[in-house]
Amino acid sequence: MIKEAIYHRPKNEFAYAIDERTIHLRLKTKMNDVDKVTIIFGDPYDYNQEEKCWISTQKDMIFNGSDGLHDYWLVSITPSHRRLRYGFLLRDEKETLYFTEKGFYQEQPKESGFYFCFPFLNRIDVFTPPVWVNHTTWYQIFPERFANGDSTINPNGTLPWGSTAPTPTNYFGGDFQGVIDHLDYLEQLGINGLYFTPIFKAHSNHKYDTIDYMEIDPQFGDKTTFKKLVKECHKKGIRVMLDAVFNHSGFYWRPFQDVLEKGEKSRYKDWFHLHQFPIKPEEPGNYDTFAYVPSMPKLNTENEEVKKYLLNVARYWIEEFDIDGWRLDVANEVDHAFWREFRRAVKKVKSDAYILGEIWHDSMPWLQGDQFDAVMNYPLTTAITEYFAKATLSTSQFANTLTSIRNLYPETVNNVQFNLLGSHDTPRILTISQNNKEKVQLQMLVQFTMAGTPCIYYGDEISMTGDQDPGCRKCMIWNKEEQDLEMFSFTQKLISLRNQQKLLRSDKNFAFLEASNEENTIIYRKKDDDNEILIFINNNDINKDVNVPIAYQQKQVVNLWNDEKKSLAHTIRMKAYGFCIVKLLN
Amino acid sequence: MIKEAIYHRPKNEFAYAIDERTIHLRLKTKMNDVDKVTIIFGDPYDYNQEEKCWISTQKDMIFNGSDGLHDYWLVSITPSHRRLRYGFLLRDEKETLYFTEKGFYQEQPKESGFYFCFPFLNRIDVFTPPVWVNHTTWYQIFPERFANGDSTINPNGTLPWGSTAPTPTNYFGGDFQGVIDHLDYLEQLGINGLYFTPIFKAHSNHKYDTIDYMEIDPQFGDKTTFKKLVKECHKKGIRVMLDAVFNHSGFYWRPFQDVLEKGEKSRYKDWFHLHQFPIKPEEPGNYDTFAYVPSMPKLNTENEEVKKYLLNVARYWIEEFDIDGWRLDVANEVDHAFWREFRRAVKKVKSDAYILGEIWHDSMPWLQGDQFDAVMNYPLTTAITEYFAKATLSTSQFANTLTSIRNLYPETVNNVQFNLLGSHDTPRILTISQNNKEKVQLQMLVQFTMAGTPCIYYGDEISMTGDQDPGCRKCMIWNKEEQDLEMFSFTQKLISLRNQQKLLRSDKNFAFLEASNEENTIIYRKKDDDNEILIFINNNDINKDVNVPIAYQQKQVVNLWNDEKKSLAHTIRMKAYGFCIVKLLN
Repeated sequence: MIKEAIYHRPKNEFAYAIDERTIHLRLKTKMNDVDKVTIIFGDPYDYNQEEKCWISTQKDMIFNGSDGLHDYWLVSITPSHRRLRYGFLLRDEKETLYFTEKGFYQEQPKESGFYFCFPFLNRIDVFTPPVWVNHTTWYQIFPERFANGDSTINPNGTLPWGSTAPTPTNYFGGDFQGVIDHLDYLEQLGINGLYFTPIFKAHSNHKYDTIDYMEIDPQFGDKTTFKKLVKECHKKGIRVMLDAVFNHSGFYWRPFQDVLEKGEKSRYKDWFHLHQFPIKPEEPGNYDTFAYVPSMPKLNTENEEVKKYLLNVARYWIEEFDIDGWRLDVANEVDHAFWREFRRAVKKVKSDAYILGEIWHDSMPWLQGDQFDAVMNYPLTTAITEYFAKATLSTSQFANTLTSIRNLYPETVNNVQFNLLGSHDTPRILTISQNNKEKVQLQMLVQFTMAGTPCIYYGDEISMTGDQDPGCRKCMIWNKEEQDLEMFSFTQKLISLRNQQKLLRSDKNFAFLEASNEENTIIYRKKDDDNEILIFINNNDINKDVNVPIAYQQKQVVNLWNDEKKSLAHTIRMKAYGFCIVKLLN
Repeated sequence: MIKEAIYHRPKNEFAYAIDERTIHLRLKTKMNDVDKVTIIFGDPYDYNQEEKCWISTQKDMIFNGSDGLHDYWLVSITPSHRRLRYGFLLRDEKETLYFTEKGFYQEQPKESGFYFCFPFLNRIDVFTPPVWVNHTTWYQIFPERFANGDSTINPNGTLPWGSTAPTPTNYFGGDFQGVIDHLDYLEQLGINGLYFTPIFKAHSNHKYDTIDYMEIDPQFGDKTTFKKLVKECHKKGIRVMLDAVFNHSGFYWRPFQDVLEKGEKSRYKDWFHLHQFPIKPEEPGNYDTFAYVPSMPKLNTENEEVKKYLLNVARYWIEEFDIDGWRLDVANEVDHAFWREFRRAVKKVKSDAYILGEIWHDSMPWLQGDQFDAVMNYPLTTAITEYFAKATLSTSQFANTLTSIRNLYPETVNNVQFNLLGSHDTPRILTISQNNKEKVQLQMLVQFTMAGTPCIYYGDEISMTGDQDPGCRKCMIWNKEEQDLEMFSFTQKLISLRNQQKLLRSDKNFAFLEASNEENTIIYRKKDDDNEILIFINNNDINKDVNVPIAYQQKQVVNLWNDEKKSLAHTIRMKAYGFCIVKLLN
């Protein structure tokens, strides 16, 4: 065994409470290097006086996938007194090893002090994201471009809807009334969460450069309209999430204007990270900014006044308008201490509000229960698009990456991760997929059969196209003739299937049964105590006969796409870019 | 290269801020598997438009020791805008590999999105333990056994001082006046921190079963005497740390008595974890306890009233008595959420208070800046005693373990770790060392030349003996004839040396130059920009000629123990269990 490749460390994703009584333990080992792993565990205080040793019991870990370098192992333990010490018994053909916090041993260490420790499962430390999130399908709205329902509030120079290509600076007058007008459309689609990019008063069409965090941008409507929008949504069982841009303000935010004007004498001078006076608002600015953008001055979220102001904003839109979640822009650059206070403030006014961070990289430091519920799952986005749309990942690399993503965070986090195929910050999925709609459908299939909470970027459900911003921010197409209704009903069906089949939403016993580079086909499984679902994917431009794994041949199944019951044969005939999703019948 | 053994993950001990501008990055690789590691780093937003690639620069990592399985690497980076993306360039004779968040590559990835991310160094997230701790030598007092200065408050049945062996239940009347009477002794010894095991009203002689958190135990004195004690200490530059037993109360604590009496009707029923009524205070109790001890009911630190009560206790003894730190008993079993509030409450009333957790195992989850400043460094205790006193570790195992301990936490944590050779919970160091005083001195030498903050258990400085509790809790010996004055002056000298030589207190460029199983001798080094100190240890019962590493032969040094200047020869003649500590002269 390659001991150096064996890794475990409490807590993070390797040892965490899955509920108030149960602890998940994970281990990683070099791929194909260990045959069997058994957990040795017990209460830290159980001691056999006669034998002079700690009293432990054993349970086999289950194999939880490979990522090309490592194998992952998992086990659930329910300790008798919520306290746990544990170690790992590793076996291959040649040797048996005990792996503990103090290292590797040939003989089982007798003292509990050698072992890893999960000292106490305190309820309050259990990571408990809102239950509704896993049941939610989101729909992302870029308000300026979804629908213009009230022309009386059009900003100056508003262009006729969809009359021309979007640019970083033009306006089409999308607003809240437009959204209200199309709630039936959204309800028909089946989504039950709306995520709005910023709606607060701002300078640009994207509104990420806030002028006033306490006001609705007048081009979208007023507070009365927004309140009505949220109410109408809630009536239809649709939750509402807003975008909090707390890393930086906009150039025209009053406190920043005050600093520009009064310099060192401004009472807001500590609200930013200013290096020199007078402030020079051109590149390179003499103050901290988002990236190198002088019009987006970084906020000093360590300052008590700034904190008070922003936490008040966070509470206000929940208390007054009953919104259900906050998506946090550039969340990784704001201090952890601020996010801890933010969580306390938000959960106090709405205990099941969803807190979603925009972080593109490994986010474990923000997902320990004290800050966010989830992050935007761009690693999943990348894996899916690189495999299906860009063909820059092989089938096995795709499977490896998905396994690696699943094992990056606790299962509790995986269940509420925000799974997206695209956003206002990426080219549209159909465009990335060279306008191949079947490829898009395979990608959505994967998106909707992973644990987490899927999000549709407005218009993707009717096959809108568009390249990197501004291209991906076109006006929503409302002319039925121009909408791809087949894609709409495919999306509808996928949403409904996910709603019906709990297993599709869960991370339980996920496994790749096949991920073949030669065949370019994939089979994966989801399984709980009651049910088992298999998903077959043919990522080829030709038809394929896909081998059914031996254990499933002759099994009675129902095809969840068309409700046909049948017995699985040795192979399944699959169309080019086809898929098949079946549930085993008992 | 064994890719599977290469590990890095932000943040924890692998990527952390060492100050407000500087980030430490660490990497581990299989031992002797990689020849050179270079960090590739840059600002996340620096992009070369022409070359279409992220702009990065390079810096070599330094080798930071081996633990027998892994090599550790370290580098300091000062990013231009407090933002950092980075990856690792690894070389051996055969290959060159790029290691990023997304995996291993033969060619350098061009997009910053591939790389590891330290998104922003926010000041408030920098782990900043109190500066004074690293300059402190602690002295642990078990108040019942240090000195009886006021016989009028002796508890019933108090025995004459030292007249008989300590038992779990007998009393000798140690008190605060006794401590005040001997402050000159402690000042003479040179310590500048006193850690008291619990002083609050309790049932037992060890006082870990609290009856009243707001009262001094009458056998120790009253609040006036305690206030005087703290004042006298402060006058002498000695800081005071108390023991907070917040995991569980004592049996006779009023709220628990109320629950015993009134059962379900008690207003305190949610202050504990009660499973059933009526409460049965015998083993196995029908409520959660510390270990299986029915007289120590576990407190429900998630309950708002309990939190309010305990946080008030935490503040009270600081605000009213000006104590300087809290040692937290059974800290690992209390919820993280409580400790986060505890830190905020304590630091608000005394920003440089020291928060020290009693945790015996890997404590990273408590040392991320939001909970503790340090933990009791029992892994170091174990390594030192197992090598020098018990001879159950080989020389190389000892060196490996120390390297592993140094690399377990950030350097910022290492600098304030509480380094002890024994306590009221372990046999005394001299007893573990089979009464060999030279062995004890070698262990103290290591203790005092490691980063952190050393603590002397009362009486060890005069060679007291004693086995596991109750043996280790004998009455302090005040009869000069019975005190080992040579050990006292050895301790004095060690404290004074550590105070004079900043390098001895730091973790900077620590390296084992030799740790030979054949010779059973050790040489280690500490080094900063200005100075370099070498420590030679002969852990044999015979004299040894220890080879001086070639690079140091002929170097001019001063022997810090006797101030002799000399040139280092090829070997140093060392006595049995001898040591030599020299500083290079420039």
